Amino acid sequence: MTTNSTFTRIGLFIRKDDPVMENAVEQVNAFLMAQKLSIVCNEPLSFLPTLPVIPIHEFPQHCELTIAIGGDGTLLSASRALAGTNMPIVGINVGRLGFLADVTLNNLSQQLGAILSGQYRDDNRFLLQATIKGANNPTSIAMNDVVIHAHQNLHMIEFETHINGKFLNSQRADGLVVATPTGSTAYSMSAGGPILDVDLDAVVLASVCPHTLSNRPLVVAASSKIDITLSENNSTTGMVTCDGRPGHLLQPGDTVTIERHQSQIRLLHLEDHDHYSILRAKLEWGRKLTC
Amino acid sequence: MTTNSTFTRIGLFIRKDDPVMENAVEQVNAFLMAQKLSIVCNEPLSFLPTLPVIPIHEFPQHCELTIAIGGDGTLLSASRALAGTNMPIVGINVGRLGFLADVTLNNLSQQLGAILSGQYRDDNRFLLQATIKGANNPTSIAMNDVVIHAHQNLHMIEFETHINGKFLNSQRADGLVVATPTGSTAYSMSAGGPILDVDLDAVVLASVCPHTLSNRPLVVAASSKIDITLSENNSTTGMVTCDGRPGHLLQPGDTVTIERHQSQIRLLHLEDHDHYSILRAKLEWGRKLTC
Amino acid sequence: MTTNSTFTRIGLFIRKDDPVMENAVEQVNAFLMAQKLSIVCNEPLSFLPTLPVIPIHEFPQHCELTIAIGGDGTLLSASRALAGTNMPIVGINVGRLGFLADVTLNNLSQQLGAILSGQYRDDNRFLLQATIKGANNPTSIAMNDVVIHAHQNLHMIEFETHINGKFLNSQRADGLVVATPTGSTAYSMSAGGPILDVDLDAVVLASVCPHTLSNRPLVVAASSKIDITLSENNSTTGMVTCDGRPGHLLQPGDTVTIERHQSQIRLLHLEDHDHYSILRAKLEWGRKLTC
Amino acid sequence: MTTNSTFTRIGLFIRKDDPVMENAVEQVNAFLMAQKLSIVCNEPLSFLPTLPVIPIHEFPQHCELTIAIGGDGTLLSASRALAGTNMPIVGINVGRLGFLADVTLNNLSQQLGAILSGQYRDDNRFLLQATIKGANNPTSIAMNDVVIHAHQNLHMIEFETHINGKFLNSQRADGLVVATPTGSTAYSMSAGGPILDVDLDAVVLASVCPHTLSNRPLVVAASSKIDITLSENNSTTGMVTCDGRPGHLLQPGDTVTIERHQSQIRLLHLEDHDHYSILRAKLEWGRKLTC
Repeated sequence: MTTNSTFTRIGLFIRKDDPVMENAVEQVNAFLMAQKLSIVCNEPLSFLPTLPVIPIHEFPQHCELTIAIGGDGTLLSASRALAGTNMPIVGINVGRLGFLADVTLNNLSQQLGAILSGQYRDDNRFLLQATIKGANNPTSIAMNDVVIHAHQNLHMIEFETHINGKFLNSQRADGLVVATPTGSTAYSMSAGGPILDVDLDAVVLASVCPHTLSNRPLVVAASSKIDITLSENNSTTGMVTCDGRPGHLLQPGDTVTIERHQSQIRLLHLEDHDHYSILRAKLEWGRKLTC
Repeated sequence: MTTNSTFTRIGLFIRKDDPVMENAVEQVNAFLMAQKLSIVCNEPLSFLPTLPVIPIHEFPQHCELTIAIGGDGTLLSASRALAGTNMPIVGINVGRLGFLADVTLNNLSQQLGAILSGQYRDDNRFLLQATIKGANNPTSIAMNDVVIHAHQNLHMIEFETHINGKFLNSQRADGLVVATPTGSTAYSMSAGGPILDVDLDAVVLASVCPHTLSNRPLVVAASSKIDITLSENNSTTGMVTCDGRPGHLLQPGDTVTIERHQSQIRLLHLEDHDHYSILRAKLEWGRKLTC
Repeated sequence: MTTNSTFTRIGLFIRKDDPVMENAVEQVNAFLMAQKLSIVCNEPLSFLPTLPVIPIHEFPQHCELTIAIGGDGTLLSASRALAGTNMPIVGINVGRLGFLADVTLNNLSQQLGAILSGQYRDDNRFLLQATIKGANNPTSIAMNDVVIHAHQNLHMIEFETHINGKFLNSQRADGLVVATPTGSTAYSMSAGGPILDVDLDAVVLASVCPHTLSNRPLVVAASSKIDITLSENNSTTGMVTCDGRPGHLLQPGDTVTIERHQSQIRLLHLEDHDHYSILRAKLEWGRKLTC
Repeated sequence: MTTNSTFTRIGLFIRKDDPVMENAVEQVNAFLMAQKLSIVCNEPLSFLPTLPVIPIHEFPQHCELTIAIGGDGTLLSASRALAGTNMPIVGINVGRLGFLADVTLNNLSQQLGAILSGQYRDDNRFLLQATIKGANNPTSIAMNDVVIHAHQNLHMIEFETHINGKFLNSQRADGLVVATPTGSTAYSMSAGGPILDVDLDAVVLASVCPHTLSNRPLVVAASSKIDITLSENNSTTGMVTCDGRPGHLLQPGDTVTIERHQSQIRLLHLEDHDHYSILRAKLEWGRKLTC
């Protein structure tokens, strides 16, 4: 007996370095096989040697849906890799409660079955792209945040920020986090940034250990062009880090431009998905006190 | 010799209780008289007994431009009184540098002259309206912020917040500030809220002395419907305060709904008005460190 | 069979307004009766009509140990009432985990039995006293904190602080919290104050919603004389609140002096009492992540 | 004509890498020569080739007073180098206002003259020492702060803290700052730490970008033994940095012990030295608002 799925060709995405995912992948694969769906995976699986392996950037030619198995980090990886395609993504949460991945292994058949049969909600998230000005214009993509910081540790950097070409300020700080609503509950929050409602069309600039005591996080429209220039008089090299991945070096005088990426990520959620409920659970805000 | 003004009928707005404004009003009046413009004022002036006095809510029938003389507080008062009309407002800053009022007495003829001759920039600001649910539905308007707090001091209140009908959280705190971008650099900032870029279409919810340590400011779309319910089990009465003015009582169980007001305030600024420059000066962010 | 108690005359302290304490008091009384100890109570108990009732300030003449039944608030009340006596106090925690009251009803016989037989640890806490300068010199005592704030709500006050006669600063804020280590995890923490280690000989000054962005909490020696003067130019009356109880009015120009009280409170804890463990539980710092 | 100096043999301390100090050193040297005092310097000076050069650690055998010329950083270097000797140190502030160095070039003869003639105030500051457990027990000294952080940038580290052998907590953060009162207005403050009054006998532990939202700075007695263990399951190497200088590597599982150093630094200040006045100026707290 099979679900009459709206998606018939499925790409599984896992991260190579995580053997504890094996059991989860087996369960998902078994469920999808039972639905008689076509399946590919981005990694060769020893326990499923016949499963076709194709790199994730080719998923759009072969699949209608990507299922990221792991946690929020896995889903971030899949999302960045699929940026610019219109591929819908579902996250299966193997570990702790995630902000993004809300299908659980315990309820796999019921939850994934519902989504496959078209009972889902779209949740579009925008991405940031960071471009370093210069000859080869290296560009990186971030779903959570772009962070500018010193290449070597515990060096304060000095930098200037312009918003849409207008000078905002010069700062000395350990770094600057530019975060999407998706990333506002990640590193930006540790740096003192506010929570941006998940569908707010804005990004937050939060300084890490700012030298100026009157520094405060700033929230600007997502359409803003944000230029960060590492001041000429820095004695240290800077670095641009996207979603925590090793990034590009920034020489004194270099400018990195951060803008909204032209395409969005399309996440699929269960129909009863409640972002505030996840916020309450993840931030330990406690239960509803009254009725 | 007169400026060929795009505005020929001017309403002056002052706050009654401020005698130090007299000299400022005389200067503004003299300048406008020299331009042969028609002038009214919201208050009788002993030193200008022939000036017609009309209440500010009738300005729209008699004037094309309101000039608020004083500071940001005076401009906030004028703006709330003129909400729902399309009256443009210019602020003349008599005291310290203001966020909103940027014409100065020292440069009155040059700056006000420029604006009267059409050399200005529009700066539209949205307002909030707070409605207490119940029989008479009292409504207040705020340009900076709506604050829910205990009527008597140093009483923590317990309240629940819903955003667009969805339960956000229950909190215990001294209060909750819901601020516009205009108000984000006022009381909300003292409570730990971020700066919202001046034209960002968003409001911030910042708790005052929250009981929960993981509480963080939340930024939501300005189009959101925000319901704050004073929990039934509060032993104290609450109060809703708009822009710091004496407000409405809130009984345990009452809900106040905060929404964007349907109309905007139209401020006129000098063409070289630079909001970030004012931010840097007001927040003492220091000069541009590098070039 | 009785415990060979080091304390033979016991005073029970409860708060009048809390009927849910009845069952707790019955249990404690029954346990003490079985030990054949002499018992008095500060309130008449309908279910124990023969129990002698004496006010808490007379406990020192009649008892060797005070048992406060309720929670941290009850223990704070008992402590202030017994300030200046050397009466040891044990707290029995009826509700949620407390910072101060660590005997639980579930383990009453084992835990209270241990303390009565001399197996306890002393935990001395200092108190603050607040004295308003002037004719009658009203003085209040606080175990958690002294707060200076506007009498009417949401009025910023302006005040000056001197430490040991030296001018510290002028501030505009909603208020100022001066907290002991005991109080550093209460209101002061909501206002952004740090945690003071429980036996640190220091107090923290934390401003509530300070107007100056570079304001930071200040920790000074507990032996400091702290003078807070409500500035002459305040348009509002201030108030001095000790441990959240209704306090003394402060007129513009008045000064309140906050000093360490000359005597300490002597709490008795279980021998395995671990303050950091309570901190971790109360602040939800999570478990020990590694071994 | 000479001052009858209480100090006759003076050691000048400068930092090698700063040519802008030349003029300052010449002025100080000329003033001291005019007093017919004996002078040595830690660096060879091209413009004073006859001045004896001896390393700072030999100053105690040759001098009665060390004059550090530069700023707070120079004075920190001198202080660490002289730790354990009882050498008094005066700071001459060449650049911006310093927290520690309060003699200025503009008032050199009057201010330094006063100190040399015995008109000074002692200001004793304690130091921290950081010892990494293991074979060679490398130890570093800090006057401001000891920071534990990831060796490579933007890596969160996981660590456990024990205070006097008691488990405090496990944390994930970018780092941990342990600061003296002297250092409480430096990096610790950027990380959100409170100000410790300059003579408070305490240290503050402030986390940098803590992962746990309920994390708060903790102030403990200066006599505390603070053990920080880099958890075994860190994938990154940690580093211990004292006063911002390149430090020691910390392998997963390693523990660094931070304690008060057995000796104090003896700074000499002008008799009218006012630490709060410097705080107000450095933190831009504004003037005294009222009288």
